Amino acid sequence: MARSIWSYLATAAALLALKATSGGASSYNGLAVTPQMGWDNWNAFGCEVDEELLMNTAQKMVDFGLRDLGYHYVILDDCWSDGRTSNGSLQANAAKFPHGMRYVADQLHSMGLGFGMYSSAGKYTCARYAASLGMEKQDAQTFADWGVDYLKYDNCYNEGQEGTSMLTYNRYKAMSDALVATGRPILYSMCNWGMDYPWNWAQTMANSWRMSGDVYDSFDRPDARCPCTTYDCRLPGFHCSVMNILNKAAPILNKAQPGAWNDLDMLEVGNSGMTDDEYKTHFSMWAIAKSPLIMGTDVTRMTPQTLSIYSNAAILAINQDPLGIPALRVWQSPAQRQNETYSVDAYTASETSFWTGQLNGGDYVAAFVNAGPGPATMMATMNDIFIDQVTTGSNAPVPQLMQTWDVFDLWANRMSDASAQAIIVGNMTMATNATDGSNATSTLPVQTYNATATSYADGLAANDPALLGVKVSTMAPMGTLVAQVPGHGVVVYRLRSQGGAGRRKRDEL
Amino acid sequence: MARSIWSYLATAAALLALKATSGGASSYNGLAVTPQMGWDNWNAFGCEVDEELLMNTAQKMVDFGLRDLGYHYVILDDCWSDGRTSNGSLQANAAKFPHGMRYVADQLHSMGLGFGMYSSAGKYTCARYAASLGMEKQDAQTFADWGVDYLKYDNCYNEGQEGTSMLTYNRYKAMSDALVATGRPILYSMCNWGMDYPWNWAQTMANSWRMSGDVYDSFDRPDARCPCTTYDCRLPGFHCSVMNILNKAAPILNKAQPGAWNDLDMLEVGNSGMTDDEYKTHFSMWAIAKSPLIMGTDVTRMTPQTLSIYSNAAILAINQDPLGIPALRVWQSPAQRQNETYSVDAYTASETSFWTGQLNGGDYVAAFVNAGPGPATMMATMNDIFIDQVTTGSNAPVPQLMQTWDVFDLWANRMSDASAQAIIVGNMTMATNATDGSNATSTLPVQTYNATATSYADGLAANDPALLGVKVSTMAPMGTLVAQVPGHGVVVYRLRSQGGAGRRKRDEL
Amino acid sequence: MARSIWSYLATAAALLALKATSGGASSYNGLAVTPQMGWDNWNAFGCEVDEELLMNTAQKMVDFGLRDLGYHYVILDDCWSDGRTSNGSLQANAAKFPHGMRYVADQLHSMGLGFGMYSSAGKYTCARYAASLGMEKQDAQTFADWGVDYLKYDNCYNEGQEGTSMLTYNRYKAMSDALVATGRPILYSMCNWGMDYPWNWAQTMANSWRMSGDVYDSFDRPDARCPCTTYDCRLPGFHCSVMNILNKAAPILNKAQPGAWNDLDMLEVGNSGMTDDEYKTHFSMWAIAKSPLIMGTDVTRMTPQTLSIYSNAAILAINQDPLGIPALRVWQSPAQRQNETYSVDAYTASETSFWTGQLNGGDYVAAFVNAGPGPATMMATMNDIFIDQVTTGSNAPVPQLMQTWDVFDLWANRMSDASAQAIIVGNMTMATNATDGSNATSTLPVQTYNATATSYADGLAANDPALLGVKVSTMAPMGTLVAQVPGHGVVVYRLRSQGGAGRRKRDEL
Amino acid sequence: MARSIWSYLATAAALLALKATSGGASSYNGLAVTPQMGWDNWNAFGCEVDEELLMNTAQKMVDFGLRDLGYHYVILDDCWSDGRTSNGSLQANAAKFPHGMRYVADQLHSMGLGFGMYSSAGKYTCARYAASLGMEKQDAQTFADWGVDYLKYDNCYNEGQEGTSMLTYNRYKAMSDALVATGRPILYSMCNWGMDYPWNWAQTMANSWRMSGDVYDSFDRPDARCPCTTYDCRLPGFHCSVMNILNKAAPILNKAQPGAWNDLDMLEVGNSGMTDDEYKTHFSMWAIAKSPLIMGTDVTRMTPQTLSIYSNAAILAINQDPLGIPALRVWQSPAQRQNETYSVDAYTASETSFWTGQLNGGDYVAAFVNAGPGPATMMATMNDIFIDQVTTGSNAPVPQLMQTWDVFDLWANRMSDASAQAIIVGNMTMATNATDGSNATSTLPVQTYNATATSYADGLAANDPALLGVKVSTMAPMGTLVAQVPGHGVVVYRLRSQGGAGRRKRDEL
Repeated sequence: MARSIWSYLATAAALLALKATSGGASSYNGLAVTPQMGWDNWNAFGCEVDEELLMNTAQKMVDFGLRDLGYHYVILDDCWSDGRTSNGSLQANAAKFPHGMRYVADQLHSMGLGFGMYSSAGKYTCARYAASLGMEKQDAQTFADWGVDYLKYDNCYNEGQEGTSMLTYNRYKAMSDALVATGRPILYSMCNWGMDYPWNWAQTMANSWRMSGDVYDSFDRPDARCPCTTYDCRLPGFHCSVMNILNKAAPILNKAQPGAWNDLDMLEVGNSGMTDDEYKTHFSMWAIAKSPLIMGTDVTRMTPQTLSIYSNAAILAINQDPLGIPALRVWQSPAQRQNETYSVDAYTASETSFWTGQLNGGDYVAAFVNAGPGPATMMATMNDIFIDQVTTGSNAPVPQLMQTWDVFDLWANRMSDASAQAIIVGNMTMATNATDGSNATSTLPVQTYNATATSYADGLAANDPALLGVKVSTMAPMGTLVAQVPGHGVVVYRLRSQGGAGRRKRDEL
Repeated sequence: MARSIWSYLATAAALLALKATSGGASSYNGLAVTPQMGWDNWNAFGCEVDEELLMNTAQKMVDFGLRDLGYHYVILDDCWSDGRTSNGSLQANAAKFPHGMRYVADQLHSMGLGFGMYSSAGKYTCARYAASLGMEKQDAQTFADWGVDYLKYDNCYNEGQEGTSMLTYNRYKAMSDALVATGRPILYSMCNWGMDYPWNWAQTMANSWRMSGDVYDSFDRPDARCPCTTYDCRLPGFHCSVMNILNKAAPILNKAQPGAWNDLDMLEVGNSGMTDDEYKTHFSMWAIAKSPLIMGTDVTRMTPQTLSIYSNAAILAINQDPLGIPALRVWQSPAQRQNETYSVDAYTASETSFWTGQLNGGDYVAAFVNAGPGPATMMATMNDIFIDQVTTGSNAPVPQLMQTWDVFDLWANRMSDASAQAIIVGNMTMATNATDGSNATSTLPVQTYNATATSYADGLAANDPALLGVKVSTMAPMGTLVAQVPGHGVVVYRLRSQGGAGRRKRDEL
Repeated sequence: MARSIWSYLATAAALLALKATSGGASSYNGLAVTPQMGWDNWNAFGCEVDEELLMNTAQKMVDFGLRDLGYHYVILDDCWSDGRTSNGSLQANAAKFPHGMRYVADQLHSMGLGFGMYSSAGKYTCARYAASLGMEKQDAQTFADWGVDYLKYDNCYNEGQEGTSMLTYNRYKAMSDALVATGRPILYSMCNWGMDYPWNWAQTMANSWRMSGDVYDSFDRPDARCPCTTYDCRLPGFHCSVMNILNKAAPILNKAQPGAWNDLDMLEVGNSGMTDDEYKTHFSMWAIAKSPLIMGTDVTRMTPQTLSIYSNAAILAINQDPLGIPALRVWQSPAQRQNETYSVDAYTASETSFWTGQLNGGDYVAAFVNAGPGPATMMATMNDIFIDQVTTGSNAPVPQLMQTWDVFDLWANRMSDASAQAIIVGNMTMATNATDGSNATSTLPVQTYNATATSYADGLAANDPALLGVKVSTMAPMGTLVAQVPGHGVVVYRLRSQGGAGRRKRDEL
Repeated sequence: MARSIWSYLATAAALLALKATSGGASSYNGLAVTPQMGWDNWNAFGCEVDEELLMNTAQKMVDFGLRDLGYHYVILDDCWSDGRTSNGSLQANAAKFPHGMRYVADQLHSMGLGFGMYSSAGKYTCARYAASLGMEKQDAQTFADWGVDYLKYDNCYNEGQEGTSMLTYNRYKAMSDALVATGRPILYSMCNWGMDYPWNWAQTMANSWRMSGDVYDSFDRPDARCPCTTYDCRLPGFHCSVMNILNKAAPILNKAQPGAWNDLDMLEVGNSGMTDDEYKTHFSMWAIAKSPLIMGTDVTRMTPQTLSIYSNAAILAINQDPLGIPALRVWQSPAQRQNETYSVDAYTASETSFWTGQLNGGDYVAAFVNAGPGPATMMATMNDIFIDQVTTGSNAPVPQLMQTWDVFDLWANRMSDASAQAIIVGNMTMATNATDGSNATSTLPVQTYNATATSYADGLAANDPALLGVKVSTMAPMGTLVAQVPGHGVVVYRLRSQGGAGRRKRDEL
């Protein structure tokens, strides 16, 4: 029996069966019961970090409503360090962080945000600053003393301590134990690039693990430095495209569970290397894969289009769904568009794929990805959509097949450029400030959702249109789902049952 | 010399040579000298387990004659637990098992059945209940105290202790030693999904080992979560189809020997995801591969077709043959059907294959598998059938080639739907109850075989028609075997020599 | 610099340079300075072993001249054992070996032969008799006490001690040390099927190592139980064809050196599964690959054709060449026969390949292999033949290209069937008995060479026609070598320079 | 974050950001801040080494200006040894080195050269002389006592201590520590053929690591003994062609950094196995890959063509660029030459590739490689050339795209044959002797650059034409770079910005 409990949970019956047991997945440290969200400076700024960057970014995250959409952690990546003090403690670069790290944490906390730090399970960080291999206890205590809420823990300069699961496990477990020993809740984000198969062993000691080499700002360009195309990779590298990572992730997505996520790497949305459709695909697929969603752009200079992607609460509600079941790639086809001529893009992509996943309350997500260059009409049958229900082996009727489903297009009411622009220029008072106790009123019908005030689950229960997108069709029993998908694009639907025979059947369980 | 004694045994001469020696394969703990048979709740019920389910199932196994066909073990899979007591002992969930586990064992024993339990060589079971890594001795003793006869031992949450044979061996050996130390005979079923090549090292400490990721209820659908297509796999996964597992198994089948079997995973027969032909193929090939045969369906709601597959004693007699030699895939062809047009199915399968294996007493099994969508006329020459005799390297005549063979179709007298229905509704008294001492008479010519009363070996010696199927042809010396095989189907023959020159030659040995 | 000294030796200059140094390859225990030759019972007899078999075989090896061709070791394979005595010593099965093992050794020694034994670096031998893992010192001493000259050491039941070079090295090193510690010269033949890359580390502690799964009596039939096609293999298996093994060996042949050989497994010549051409190919290629040559057939029932293959002294002289440089596969082509239609055989083989290797005294061997079903005209240029001289990087003239070469066909004066038959029926007195001190005269012009009387090196120096075959052509400077090669066949030439400009150049070194 | 700091450095902004930090790459022992240059005897002489060879070579390196081009180390490879003295110290072969090794070092030092030695991390060297596994401290001290400046440390006979990064790391780290402990600066050149992924872990303890099996004197001939075509290789072998190594290197080139280089193996330029175009390609690509440049030919018998390749200071200035950023293979195409028929060479090569890399001061190198047999017109867009700037993810303008670039062909003013011949025959007095304090005047306009007198960086700053080649065109903003590339050839350009909008933008950073 290799199925994790979360694959099993895909059958509705199991949900009920588990309610009274002591089993079931839970976060090893109580954190990240849904995938963590936040911002990290690396993708956009690299080593150019300082207090001002973090403070400015944090303020904009609050102002733009991003904090209240759930982007909680402000993560300082590599290059913050000035080595160690005489007693061996890590110390921040005083020129970059004149008030010290405790101050940064306090400021972020006062803004309702969490503070993320960075080190490596090696002799050096990737930029060759002092790192934590062999210093785990002291460094974890330093981070706790500074008020850190999150640790991104990299894999550079690991002194040959890799190549079997046991070696890598031990190296990362040392920091996990050290963080727990501090008594401070610190989300632990392993960044070992999928080396030695962390999806097999990291769930009991980390909140997430990178599963590939570094993403870069390209939709599907192959790069010599990211040579692998499958999860089984001895050279994770970097400059991995969005499609490269997504395809590597497909076989391991189900290894995730609440408290322990596959990290597909930080988002490139807004960094200008992809088209708007490509960024929508990137953002949507990371979300439904239950990857942590870490913004990787310059928040202070966001375009309206960038903001409206990051702010799509209907997509975020999939990512933050309490069931925490990653989507499944049901099929992948190099030439799905039958009976028609299709072309390939500059990097020879023509593939299409269909993804589905169960959501809390009986809803489903269905996503069509078109990596070819031109538009495609894509279709999925109910047997595709409910494949895990059809093949449970329970010899029970599959109620979903007999139901009528409302189909909501989750990008159809994306925030308008005008609204996004209004938020950016700050000429409106938004509900997103509601957490400060004020009773502010939004002056424009801005659709940014405030998850701080109303959880995604509650919003969905209340049929909040910001979380449902636009209903575009209904699908009858044994029907077919159809989507017009642009080149390098995605269509994401939420399916909600209207009830019917199937609905009743399910209630009987 | 890499051949195990069992490949060598394929030459008749060796059979005699071994009789007086101290060598030869034998079970490390005396159990499973033929592949274990039984029932496990996982495929059909997942976590929904309780005492009532086991009791009801056990009763039906007796009533339907399944027990007396050899389905001995009633195996309780994951989710039975309520963690550990204050002294660290595993304890059952009292709501599910109100009388405790000892009671379950006693009840099963009183019905002539064995009791199987489940744990994992990890921190948690796959459903995240307490598991046995580091607690092997205490848990083995608990199981022995409860009267357990069988342990399925899973691989989830193994804390990175994998990736080389040595690490996995040590982890599983700890429980093997602990079980032996209890003094109670407990069949030990390793469930490590083929990780780290257990077929190379598990024969001396376990009765079976899983050799792939989890099966699911599909004949040949590829699934993203079961990405491997060969035995050499770093991500066994789950949702592996019947054909996926069968093809992974082909190169390692000969690693099995009496007391130590390749486990192709529990049977999906009856779970509604496959056609009747597909289930016949699944059941037949598991049987001739000498896999454990563990029913994985809801016994209490079996259809007649399901019962008549599980009850095919002619197939079971192959599985339980005392020689214990797994079948060999003699050839595999993507387009065996020469000179004719063939088509591929929805998952692009068109392959055919031919399998053969030596049986006790000089018989052979020959199986034709057609994974393509349409019917096929398949043929095998005597050189195909007796390939291991032809290529022994002994430079001796191959008597089998010179003999005339009776060809018995092992599915040709499958129990009728009416008979199966009669058994299910209970309107007949069957010989299958004979073990209770009664002198019951069968009121219908039901062909269910009672292996409790008469062993398969004795039945075969007596030419019991229930074990021979229907003689459909004879094959002359140097002749060809022909079969009409439906799409996604199988034809299985038992070949029995009429004697002749070859027969005499063999007697001379 | 990865080239072993033996690849470097391919340049004539190096030969001279090394003469005065302390470096250079040498056998770790002084044995097997050329590949060992002998007979092993496994291929033909499997477990059916006893004293009588060994004595009868040994006598025929003497009578047929095989001993004096160099077939020195009579190796008893698995199944000789009766477990251990009360003090833990291995003991022979008394029914099979009524006079004990010391007697067997004494008898063989009196016949001028060596005695080979068998055990496994595991808990059991492959036939599950007691084996030597953890008992190395005691067992080595037992073998030494018995007068054993050779140990074949298998890999079955190794208790998970494999998967990295270090684990396998340690396991085999334990027996190597134990053998050396006995003080008796015992040739050490590792049989670990190429697992964990023994060609990288075994030269300092063993005389040979198997580099693949077990051979079987087929030229090129694929078998499910031998799934690998390259040296990098996690499932060596058995039933590997001659062509399968040869192609696996090509990349590692140069890892051999005097005292440490790649073992391609025992010969199947004479076992009836291949044609005469196929056996010639098998024998020739094993020989020029510098594999140990261990006869694997029933010597007492050899056909004339079988004897004349094993007795081809011209081929054996290549194998036993004092330089010990394995041949190189210069090229391999699936369709070398340009401008003509070619067909594929039943197993889709159509490949051809060309091999070359340097010999002592400036000679070369050149072999054309045709694995396709029909005859082929094959050609090789001087740049092919002398590729290692052309690409030495020394920027020196390549004298070989400027020379004229005599071309000797090494199969052209193969012993006639009549002569072989005469030897077999024993109606002649042969020079092969010369070692017994008698002054016997051969009554027929039998070409069996007596290497006991005159070493291969001396015979070649004396231009003994038995070692040169038949001169069939000359090759002018920059010329081309041509061969008509039958399907599944081989042509092997010895090239000997007539001197000329190149010859002089070489003399100047 | 998997990018090393050096990939990050590809963005100009980072260069500035790093200036004031304590991070950033630096050599672990202060050596090889640019790739080491020198000469090693192996490729041309193998085991034929003695004092005279080293002295004669060293003198010619000085005479020909090679020393002052930067070829600093004279490396004595295998076969110098006579085993160990009674106290266990390594000792030189007295016949070959009559004055001992200290004398050799002193002589080389007096000529302004460094002395390189050789040993192996094994029981023996590859030629089976005494090696240093387990003797690291004593041997390192011996080398230091002898005045050694450089150690090439091979991988033969490593006793199974390989197969995981940890085992190989530990084996090589032992010598690294021993060398450091001597207190003498000794450049440490690991020669483990890429086994166990040294690019992942060697930067903190070695100055370079071999990343493949041994090169041989062929442009693209496949050889059975070099079976791998990717970096992930269990049998590095030898006889690897230039194109084989270059393609293996592409995915790992970025793992290099100042002080720690990928070693593509010693140069074959001059050894006669390749054409002049092939040698230019070999030399150019090794240089821009930032491989150590170790001459591997007979310096005393160099042809003018060979000297003029090794002396191309414009190429050397790329290799010795202070940024130390290896080139990136931007694309590789089997049939880049669109809209035209192309042919394949004898080894089926038809590939073309484009490479680019950032240089100090804002320059770039761009290289077109044509491995096909015939000439090709190749093109690269600005998006190709500046791909790393375009995809930084910084959402910042890419100034390079808006600039006008001068294009310098780095082979266009290659030294003439006449000039080279003049140097070789010694009929001129050159500035290359300037380091001896004399005031010699060159009698011919020889273009050999004297880097001892003027560093490459200073020469470039001064626009020295010897370092710039010939300006052949300009490339306008968003322009395209075009090259006519001969078969098996290369074109290498240095791009230098004329400034413009982009130039100003960069200045603003």
